[in-house]
Amino acid sequence: VGPPKPTPAGSETQQAGEDAAIQRIGRRVAEVFGAPTGSQRWVGDDAAVLETPEADLVMTVDSTVEGVHVSLDLMSLEDVGWRAMSRAMSDVAAMGSAPRFALVSVCLPPTCAVDELYEGLLDAAASYACPIVGGDLVAAPLLSLSIAIGAVTPDGEPVGRDGARPGDAIFVTGPLGAGAAGLRLLRADPVSPGGDPLVDAYRRPRAQLAAGWAARASGAAAMMDISDGLAIDLDRLVRASGVGFRLDDLPVAPGATLAEALGGGDDYQLLIVSGHPGAVVEGFASSGLPAPTPIGRCTADPEERQFRGAPVDRLGWEHGIR
Amino acid sequence: VGPPKPTPAGSETQQAGEDAAIQRIGRRVAEVFGAPTGSQRWVGDDAAVLETPEADLVMTVDSTVEGVHVSLDLMSLEDVGWRAMSRAMSDVAAMGSAPRFALVSVCLPPTCAVDELYEGLLDAAASYACPIVGGDLVAAPLLSLSIAIGAVTPDGEPVGRDGARPGDAIFVTGPLGAGAAGLRLLRADPVSPGGDPLVDAYRRPRAQLAAGWAARASGAAAMMDISDGLAIDLDRLVRASGVGFRLDDLPVAPGATLAEALGGGDDYQLLIVSGHPGAVVEGFASSGLPAPTPIGRCTADPEERQFRGAPVDRLGWEHGIR
Repeated sequence: VGPPKPTPAGSETQQAGEDAAIQRIGRRVAEVFGAPTGSQRWVGDDAAVLETPEADLVMTVDSTVEGVHVSLDLMSLEDVGWRAMSRAMSDVAAMGSAPRFALVSVCLPPTCAVDELYEGLLDAAASYACPIVGGDLVAAPLLSLSIAIGAVTPDGEPVGRDGARPGDAIFVTGPLGAGAAGLRLLRADPVSPGGDPLVDAYRRPRAQLAAGWAARASGAAAMMDISDGLAIDLDRLVRASGVGFRLDDLPVAPGATLAEALGGGDDYQLLIVSGHPGAVVEGFASSGLPAPTPIGRCTADPEERQFRGAPVDRLGWEHGIR
Repeated sequence: VGPPKPTPAGSETQQAGEDAAIQRIGRRVAEVFGAPTGSQRWVGDDAAVLETPEADLVMTVDSTVEGVHVSLDLMSLEDVGWRAMSRAMSDVAAMGSAPRFALVSVCLPPTCAVDELYEGLLDAAASYACPIVGGDLVAAPLLSLSIAIGAVTPDGEPVGRDGARPGDAIFVTGPLGAGAAGLRLLRADPVSPGGDPLVDAYRRPRAQLAAGWAARASGAAAMMDISDGLAIDLDRLVRASGVGFRLDDLPVAPGATLAEALGGGDDYQLLIVSGHPGAVVEGFASSGLPAPTPIGRCTADPEERQFRGAPVDRLGWEHGIR
């Protein structure tokens, strides 16, 4: 087991994979508890959207596991903490919501110092202005962290994956492939001291909270973070929306390859879909954010997956789950 | 690594242990984010108590790890799911709150079927009337689950660990030692088909939500669930409250030993402390619950730990964390 490599996750592997398992779980949850009412979203989006008598909340829980998402051969425990917090926070960004509190459950082998890990967790949480309010500590043979984040969406509705319509413009919030390229460099030279922007992108990703907020406020129809790879994550978004896509451009991070940009994952940029692309561009400008890059459009054919006129494989990371 | 054994967790191991690590984390959180305001509770109780502009919430996250909290040699994947959900729910019970939603992050090895695990999770969640609204799936070398639960406390304040005063009565909600005795029986005969009440107590514990609710409503001063062992958990409660304790009785589950009742853990009964013991007894009766058992009193000497006139060791389970 090592850090994730880009692997094709074709439809033939669907029934054995993470996505199929999540669909089955969603069906069983609906059988046991009924479908969520109103504007709630339960299983199957970046985060759950809840309406309780007390409050509307956006909740996510996200795990980071040594040997799967992180490798202590390639980064410090502080980096692991930062990265785990940013990965979870990215799910909140993808809803266009604002984080309010985080809880951290840590499984720690005897070789790891909890304080070092927490320094990275706290640095990241502070940079997102989100307090760590509780959690759990377990002595375990394998390092892993599960982070639950509670968020709110004042003056609006969280943005799901299923709102894209044919003709809508597709944006990404920044160049892609940096995370995967950084991992490639780290594997060649594991003791890299940092300072290289690609290595830093891999070790210390940043959740795009301000961009998600600006996109939601400017009327984005669908949104998702790119954690597993553009091709597989965009496939998930258009599948949830019942549309297809044609891409004509892709901002590749300097030093990354096109394959890394398409299927590398670990970028934590956002995919934004909107029927009013001008409003999105204006919203980013008025928030002082770098303009998002238009990369293509949604199409009416739900089977269509095109990049520069050619079919695009479902490249990216999907967990093997049975 | 095997399922937990009762191990003495004396004060000499404090600095290397879970409790000391949690204290250090609490101090660092306060340095970075400030102390929580109002009636909020962050790090250090069974669950976090939050006041956001939108709602007051009780949040917990709890991990269950193969080889630490559960063993697939001794129980089915369905049992693991049930047990993990009940362990997390027990933290909500210990605040006197009512669960509203659960999120489940699962790390799953290729040998385990996610659907089987989810059947146990869903059974338990349905029995607690708490929908599973989201989560995360990761293919990983070691089976583990982290469950986040959001809860509310209408018409009242959640009950923490730190409200016990000298002279207050101490109750437990049921007989102790059943979980540890069940584990002992399972180790002797791992293929036990179930049906034995002790084995069932270990494989399928129940969170005491109704009892926690009744105790809070009848004015309990402090509360905590017994997951690691009566002696260590009561030590944590009186330490948080700045009092001592003298126990004169202990309800031992039929078939369990006194040592299992004192330090076995895995019981998920509640410790209830109250300055108005009659009100607690009446509250349980009017809720149709079995009467809680008075086991002793809190004392003014914060160093005192007595059982039937003799000092009692801090028996129970504490994770070794550095």
